[in-house]
Amino acid sequence: MAVTQDELIYQLVKQYMQTSGQTITAEPGPLTERQVAPASEPIRLSTGVSNRHVHLNRHDLDELFGEGYELKEDKPLSQAGMFAASETVILAGPKGALTGVRILGPLRRNTQIEISFTDARHLGVVPPVMQSGETGKTPELTLIGPKGTITNNNAVMVPWRHVHMEADRAAAWGLKDGDIVKARTLGERSVVFENVIVRTGKGWINEFHIDTDEGNTANIRTGDIVEIIRG
Amino acid sequence: MAVTQDELIYQLVKQYMQTSGQTITAEPGPLTERQVAPASEPIRLSTGVSNRHVHLNRHDLDELFGEGYELKEDKPLSQAGMFAASETVILAGPKGALTGVRILGPLRRNTQIEISFTDARHLGVVPPVMQSGETGKTPELTLIGPKGTITNNNAVMVPWRHVHMEADRAAAWGLKDGDIVKARTLGERSVVFENVIVRTGKGWINEFHIDTDEGNTANIRTGDIVEIIRG
Repeated sequence: MAVTQDELIYQLVKQYMQTSGQTITAEPGPLTERQVAPASEPIRLSTGVSNRHVHLNRHDLDELFGEGYELKEDKPLSQAGMFAASETVILAGPKGALTGVRILGPLRRNTQIEISFTDARHLGVVPPVMQSGETGKTPELTLIGPKGTITNNNAVMVPWRHVHMEADRAAAWGLKDGDIVKARTLGERSVVFENVIVRTGKGWINEFHIDTDEGNTANIRTGDIVEIIRG
Repeated sequence: MAVTQDELIYQLVKQYMQTSGQTITAEPGPLTERQVAPASEPIRLSTGVSNRHVHLNRHDLDELFGEGYELKEDKPLSQAGMFAASETVILAGPKGALTGVRILGPLRRNTQIEISFTDARHLGVVPPVMQSGETGKTPELTLIGPKGTITNNNAVMVPWRHVHMEADRAAAWGLKDGDIVKARTLGERSVVFENVIVRTGKGWINEFHIDTDEGNTANIRTGDIVEIIRG
């Protein structure tokens, strides 16, 4: 009789646990990682779901809002120093436009537009999945502000799903900047997000970041908890 | 030294394979199910990504398009007898409306409205995740056609992700109607969809069905292949 992979692993782990004097908590049925997990501390993080937004550089803020314009902080974001500005722009592409697209501050070296694939289809572009800060040739989108219009063709991206971790905390969890992990959500729409990039920084808040498509797929919102799966 | 769960399973499977004279194809690194899978036939299915749509009953088609109206077939769907109609309706909720929402034929016993969570937020409702054919109290949406307007508050749903399988084929794979499986996608946005319901029927096409949020999250389209994971 053919043995499924789950049954095989289950039998092997059961043998190992019995001969090593450990008990196994769950009897047959599909084997989940949790049932056999003997090992390391679980990592549970809060989720942040990011809606479409833009980061601007000094030049582009001047073009859109006028020379020397300063962004007004509407509300702080979870990472220290970052904020959602009161100001918004219109994003326009070959097939459609989106109004009220939030600007995040402070200003950056390069302007960057982060949208979901749902947004991209509405606008009529096919952006790459990129990490924040990456540059490269991307589709063009037009930004329209109260004082002017610019076109960005360097960083129109769907953000790569990632976790932010405080550097020392990440190290204690056995993780470092650039590692790839998975994130499992709970509930009837549960998914395991693969290819989640670990980003670490001193003093950072530990948080799992996804876009609105990913949030809607898992039916989770900002503040909901996910379990990080190493490796 | 603490051993992670993946390493433990890897060592156990390696021992087992060596003592049983089998070879293991991949040396250390994160262990994937594929690397250890000795067992049963993989199930690979084509994906169908469903955009928002409505199924109508006779009464509601009469109300929206006029007494005795017949739907015109625009194109056949993958399941025999089903089709996308040329006709569309406007869907309206407390916060917004969506135009050009496709009607699927043939007519059914109960009118049913299937939308994504992205649509639901735009319309301003919070629908349950339900299986096609399920009924129950749901939020209300208004349907607007060329001859009339109706309100549906019985089956406004986000469709539960599912696979359609030909009944005999499913049995050969060890699956039956109502079973729960997972589906893994490929690529940089790869995810494992959990809680995928198996639906079987005589003569059905084997296909994995998701909504546009799920398709955009995994960055897959109709026709892309997923791997079904049993149990």
